Amino acid sequence: MPFVTIEMIEGRTPEQKRELVEKITKVVAETVNVPEERVYVFIEDLKKDHFARGGKLIIDQE
Amino acid sequence: MPFVTIEMIEGRTPEQKRELVEKITKVVAETVNVPEERVYVFIEDLKKDHFARGGKLIIDQE
Amino acid sequence: MPFVTIEMIEGRTPEQKRELVEKITKVVAETVNVPEERVYVFIEDLKKDHFARGGKLIIDQE
Amino acid sequence: MPFVTIEMIEGRTPEQKRELVEKITKVVAETVNVPEERVYVFIEDLKKDHFARGGKLIIDQE
Amino acid sequence: MPFVTIEMIEGRTPEQKRELVEKITKVVAETVNVPEERVYVFIEDLKKDHFARGGKLIIDQE
Amino acid sequence: MPFVTIEMIEGRTPEQKRELVEKITKVVAETVNVPEERVYVFIEDLKKDHFARGGKLIIDQE
Repeated sequence: MPFVTIEMIEGRTPEQKRELVEKITKVVAETVNVPEERVYVFIEDLKKDHFARGGKLIIDQE
Repeated sequence: MPFVTIEMIEGRTPEQKRELVEKITKVVAETVNVPEERVYVFIEDLKKDHFARGGKLIIDQE
Repeated sequence: MPFVTIEMIEGRTPEQKRELVEKITKVVAETVNVPEERVYVFIEDLKKDHFARGGKLIIDQE
Repeated sequence: MPFVTIEMIEGRTPEQKRELVEKITKVVAETVNVPEERVYVFIEDLKKDHFARGGKLIIDQE
Repeated sequence: MPFVTIEMIEGRTPEQKRELVEKITKVVAETVNVPEERVYVFIEDLKKDHFARGGKLIIDQE
Repeated sequence: MPFVTIEMIEGRTPEQKRELVEKITKVVAETVNVPEERVYVFIEDLKKDHFARGGKLIIDQE
C-alpha cells in the first residue's frame, strides 16, 4: 500500500515506463510517508482501437 | 469527465465497438449535460479463459 | 455481461442516474445483441476533493 | 453479483486458474448467501514489464 | 501480489466481510503458492442507488 | 490521458492529497511528454474495515 495505476495510450517505450514507475514511487513514498518497498505501480496500455474520446476511437482520429 | 468503461466478452467486431462508443458518448453527454468532447470511453475485452460465472470459466461452458 | 462503469463528478440527480442506466443499458443491449437483463451498470461519483486535472483538485479549481 | 477480480503476476497455469475460480466462487457464495450462478470472477494477468514494486519493474528484479 | 477485489451489494455484516477475506486469502495463497501475507483483498460495497441490472437501479427493483 | 489512480489507506490529509496530485501530474507529464492539462488523477481512500492483508482486515491488525 499505496497502489498506483497508470492508464495511458499504447506506444510509450520501456525506458519511459521504467522512469515513470521509479519517479512515481519516489513521489508517493515521500508524500505519504511510506517506504518505497510498499508502493505498487501498475501500468495499463490503452489500445487506440479500444479507447475513445468525443464518441470516436482514438485510432479513427489519427 | 465522465469516464465510461465497458467490459464485455471478446469477439465483438470493430464496427460494433465504433457504434458503441458513439452511442454511449451521445447518451452520456445529453443526460449529464457535458460536451461530447469531454466523454471518454474505454472498452475491455473479457477473455473467455479469464472470466468465470458460477465457478466455471466461460471457455469451459461452450 | 456486459458490465458498464460510469465515473463522473458528484452532484448529478437521482433522475439523471436513472435515465443514464436505462439509456446505456438499451444502447449496449442493442449494439452487442444481448438481453437487457444481462447488462450491469455501475455508477461511481468522483468527489471533487479526490479528483484532479492539470495537477489541481477539481474543488480547488472552482 | 458479487463480482470478484483477481490480479496476479502472469505465468499461472490454466488448471490453477480453473481451480481458483471454482474455489473462490464457492467461498463467496457460501459466505454471503448467493447462488454460485450469480458469482462472476475476472482474472487479470499482471505483466512483469508493466508492474512494479519499490520503484522497479518486476521484470527488472529477476 | 495477488490482489483480489470483491464488489458486492451493500448490507453484508462485518463478520461476513471478515470471513470472506480470511477464506479468500487462504484459497488464493494455496492455489497459486504464495504466502498469505502477500495476498491483498479489497471489498467494495455497491450502493443500490448506484448499481443497475436490466436498465433499472437495484433500489428501484425492491 | 493519461489517467492515474492512487488507492491508499484512509487518513491522509487534504494537503498531502494536493501535494500528491500536483507532483504526480508533473512527473507523468514530463516523462511521457503530454501537457499537465491532459493528466487526470483519481484518489481512492481504502477504508481499514474494507481492506485486508494476510487474511485479516487492516482495522483488526491495529
